[in-house]
Amino acid sequence: MFKKYNVIVVGAGHAGCEAAAAAANLGSSVLLITMNMGTIAQMSCNPAMGGVAKGQIVREVDALGGYSGIITDKTSIQFRMLNQSKGPAMWSPRAQSDRMRFAEEWRLALERTPNVDMWQDTVTSLLIKNNTVAGVKTSIGVEIEADAVVLTNGTFLNGIIHIGEKKFGGGRTGEKAATGLTEQLVTLGFEAGRMKTGTPPRVDGRSLNYSLMEEQWGDTVRGKFSYTDVQGIEEQRCCWITYTNSNVHETLKEGFEKSPMFTGRIKGLGPRYCPSIEDKINRFAERDRHQIFVEPEGLNTVEIYVNGFSTSLPEDVQYRALTQIPGFETAKMFRPGYAIEYDFFPPTQLSLTLETKQISNLYFAGQINGTTGYEEAASQGFIAGINAHQKINDKHELILKRSESYIGVLIDDLVTKGTEEPYRMFTSRAEHRLLLRQDNADIRLSPIGHELGLINDERLEKVNAKIKNSDDIVAFTKAKSIEPSKVNAILEENGTSAIPQNTKLFNLLSRPQVGFDELKAADNSLQELLSKYDKETIEQAEIKIKYESYFIKEMEIVDKMKKMEDREINPNFDYSQLGSLSKEAREKLSRIKPRTLGQASRISGVSPSDVSVLMVHVSR
Amino acid sequence: MFKKYNVIVVGAGHAGCEAAAAAANLGSSVLLITMNMGTIAQMSCNPAMGGVAKGQIVREVDALGGYSGIITDKTSIQFRMLNQSKGPAMWSPRAQSDRMRFAEEWRLALERTPNVDMWQDTVTSLLIKNNTVAGVKTSIGVEIEADAVVLTNGTFLNGIIHIGEKKFGGGRTGEKAATGLTEQLVTLGFEAGRMKTGTPPRVDGRSLNYSLMEEQWGDTVRGKFSYTDVQGIEEQRCCWITYTNSNVHETLKEGFEKSPMFTGRIKGLGPRYCPSIEDKINRFAERDRHQIFVEPEGLNTVEIYVNGFSTSLPEDVQYRALTQIPGFETAKMFRPGYAIEYDFFPPTQLSLTLETKQISNLYFAGQINGTTGYEEAASQGFIAGINAHQKINDKHELILKRSESYIGVLIDDLVTKGTEEPYRMFTSRAEHRLLLRQDNADIRLSPIGHELGLINDERLEKVNAKIKNSDDIVAFTKAKSIEPSKVNAILEENGTSAIPQNTKLFNLLSRPQVGFDELKAADNSLQELLSKYDKETIEQAEIKIKYESYFIKEMEIVDKMKKMEDREINPNFDYSQLGSLSKEAREKLSRIKPRTLGQASRISGVSPSDVSVLMVHVSR
Repeated sequence: MFKKYNVIVVGAGHAGCEAAAAAANLGSSVLLITMNMGTIAQMSCNPAMGGVAKGQIVREVDALGGYSGIITDKTSIQFRMLNQSKGPAMWSPRAQSDRMRFAEEWRLALERTPNVDMWQDTVTSLLIKNNTVAGVKTSIGVEIEADAVVLTNGTFLNGIIHIGEKKFGGGRTGEKAATGLTEQLVTLGFEAGRMKTGTPPRVDGRSLNYSLMEEQWGDTVRGKFSYTDVQGIEEQRCCWITYTNSNVHETLKEGFEKSPMFTGRIKGLGPRYCPSIEDKINRFAERDRHQIFVEPEGLNTVEIYVNGFSTSLPEDVQYRALTQIPGFETAKMFRPGYAIEYDFFPPTQLSLTLETKQISNLYFAGQINGTTGYEEAASQGFIAGINAHQKINDKHELILKRSESYIGVLIDDLVTKGTEEPYRMFTSRAEHRLLLRQDNADIRLSPIGHELGLINDERLEKVNAKIKNSDDIVAFTKAKSIEPSKVNAILEENGTSAIPQNTKLFNLLSRPQVGFDELKAADNSLQELLSKYDKETIEQAEIKIKYESYFIKEMEIVDKMKKMEDREINPNFDYSQLGSLSKEAREKLSRIKPRTLGQASRISGVSPSDVSVLMVHVSR
Repeated sequence: MFKKYNVIVVGAGHAGCEAAAAAANLGSSVLLITMNMGTIAQMSCNPAMGGVAKGQIVREVDALGGYSGIITDKTSIQFRMLNQSKGPAMWSPRAQSDRMRFAEEWRLALERTPNVDMWQDTVTSLLIKNNTVAGVKTSIGVEIEADAVVLTNGTFLNGIIHIGEKKFGGGRTGEKAATGLTEQLVTLGFEAGRMKTGTPPRVDGRSLNYSLMEEQWGDTVRGKFSYTDVQGIEEQRCCWITYTNSNVHETLKEGFEKSPMFTGRIKGLGPRYCPSIEDKINRFAERDRHQIFVEPEGLNTVEIYVNGFSTSLPEDVQYRALTQIPGFETAKMFRPGYAIEYDFFPPTQLSLTLETKQISNLYFAGQINGTTGYEEAASQGFIAGINAHQKINDKHELILKRSESYIGVLIDDLVTKGTEEPYRMFTSRAEHRLLLRQDNADIRLSPIGHELGLINDERLEKVNAKIKNSDDIVAFTKAKSIEPSKVNAILEENGTSAIPQNTKLFNLLSRPQVGFDELKAADNSLQELLSKYDKETIEQAEIKIKYESYFIKEMEIVDKMKKMEDREINPNFDYSQLGSLSKEAREKLSRIKPRTLGQASRISGVSPSDVSVLMVHVSR
């Protein structure tokens, strides 16, 4: 009944959708299996993509030829570039999406991807032959063969939902949990753990008093995630900000004795940086208020997402606390918040391709690896999908470097360090965040996407033109001087000192107070030059000029570290023979099997002296 | 946490949505409880509304002020007026809807209905005080009070899904079943039964060969369901027709020994007139082919609904049989068909308002009453929602007569006769189908909708104008004669005999071969008159003219029967005292408690002689 597929992807969330699209676009025949074709690419939690570090990840996926950026742009109802007051390394795109449109556009995108078939069913076990995955078996008893399998089970594996003292099985509210897979994987020798995450109540927007909240509109000039030309929804929506207060906190505390988190009923660790409201008032007892973002779920619906109010307290406590927030006095809940516990597999059991070490051709992506966040999931799915295809076609692996992408940082962190609690990306996790910017993801990664075959010549040419043109602009500013009489008034107007003699445009542009917009007026040839290029090219040039010295320093550090990163370790190297290593280092190195000296150095428990020992002994 | 509601509606399918909207529009505060707010108004089975008798029901709901017609018009991607070659009593509107848009529009409509609140949860029991429903209790343990409750649980009560020899609990595939309610109702004295229904596989439209099928387009001049001005989707879609063959049948038979239906694993009876394909080849062994309608699930999706191929045979048998249908040779399934068994409550336990006899203020609507079909469900929900509101406000009941609506036929049949198998509406179930037409549902029912307050003055005025204007046109044709010289050529052209002398337009229009379109050209004053009126008014006049004599006869029968229908029976009448009744009649009458002599006469087991006895003895 089923042909043998190249790749089977289990689960159709952010990770599964990207995995299916990537493998199919590379030429694999793909079967995407989902429990419910009506909930493909559901945004289970907040109706937004991007944010600090996460927005960069979406840009990276887009630059490599993934779909998340395109889908977000098509369906966004508010776009904001966060941190614009800070340096460009911190600029982070974030968009509110229309939840229904987002899911619909993903489904359409998959339906339009020629090699993607879909099957609605629940995978209950894997077919394994000679320690290699050979397909899946489903709840209706079908066996489907494949060369590779990508598991993206999200919160569904043995999912248990908690609200106060009540708990019930489920992968999301109203949906079934998935059983069987964890048990089989444990039998096969995998280590499994439990994590938890949560979601806030949803409320009826008609019952809120927005006049008591602060409006938060998107950027006037709307940015986007994708480097391609995508048409989005024209109409945009406002969000609102309000705050909890001590009354809200006191009410929530009344529920603590029934809280599944504080009474020990939830064993899994929750996301530290996306904590529940009870977590926040518990851990930050000194703060008398927390910010609440009031986000519309779509263009046409009255449903509102109460961002910042994730909770698993009893629903009556949720309600009483919620209605003490300014603007929520008469709030009507559509559904309570809840916590969900689910199985994950510590990601140190994976190689950097996201293939499991135990079972060949089996890949894990998303929450099953202990991460949290749509963007983290999407990027892992994308990489897993690519590597599954590459592996079964004897093509090279795709391992992105920490110095070239947040995706590289994410996967290296997971695989090398593991994670005890849901892993979320931050700019601080990257050694070279100055280089990993949202504006240059295309420059960093499009050549890789093109070489793989995921982006076409036209897109690569566009990137190369952007590089060349922005370099031309930089070169022009280094060559061209301007007279004091032409520019001093502008400089003083912008709060920076006048120049006593002719000065290179480049030097003026290095000043934080002055940009192309200011200088254009003073120099016709500059104005003429810039008129030839698009916004992104000019922005790129300006960033290159303003931060050139930093970039040069950063690149020097990268080059130094590169020596460690380039020093590959034989994957079959026998650490147990190396008596001069600490016992902990021997154990960890044997388990993680680092691919490079750089990766080895990041393993917790591997000390600098261990690294010195390795430097001497390991080489291929 | 919850205020006390006037009406709680459990379930948000066609029945629940109409119930919630109707009660809210009448002024009740309504809480609509659904297991999943993402699946409100899901078309669980085929993506179409209407059809023979069913289309009339949708028109009736619309005429009374319900939403189903409006939602269908907004989301239809193909419209056909069925049976146009037959008399107007058989004309039946049917539309393919875009499944996603349909669900979305219903949700929007509910969100825009001021008195409707929503809550995502599962009702596990009812709160009962003094044999009167007082609210509901949910799976998370919340108790919510209400004056009245409408249960519209569809296939979810103890739902079990069957595919071949496998079975699992679920209300629809991938969704949980609902437990607890049946058990409580049985404890309260209700009789419960099991029914089954089924659904065909869904397939990937990209894998079909449409050149081997017959195209089926919608009407060029697109009709609609709603009497209001609704803008629909402009783009329309084609459907296709293909056929099974003896190879398909032979393959299906191979699965019979694993069929849950033929091996006795399914105990509930399925819908006779919407049978599974295995049912069809079993019951109609002499037929060597069955029609298959290939229906798109929406404007943008490749998903295809295989109408006519409902099955619960093992998925591999489904697949092998399916791929022997012309055009399906390389079909890829998205999901297999399945059968589902669920609890229903024999509807003889209800009064004609759809209130249960056991528990006051508790109403049942839809599949829980043993019906099948979206339209049947929607109309019951609508009536139950209205009656719940009317009852708790001490207002008059809404009981539609058999002579004025299919809805009246439906509910009277259910309550009076009960049903052993899923009940579907047919025109043949109505005594007066000549009067119950899709063209005059507004004339029949809008005054009732207006009196209730569900349609506004403007709509009623429009209906009254339609009546008056069409009567004026009829009167004109009765007064106005035409000369042979002006019309004989036209008559002969249309295959009907010439007239020898001046003849009334009315008499010419009574001929089946001649309509307004033909006569307009021959008579300027007619042309001028008609130019003043809209299409529906002119159509109404033409129908009145062509079928006047039939209508008069039919109305005479209605009047005769009206004597029986108007003869009310005291609901507390003690039949056990009436020794002259047959034993069976005594039992059935005591159980059903008919409201009128007419209803009593339709109870199976109540003979004409029993009715004669009743005539003598019952009167208030």
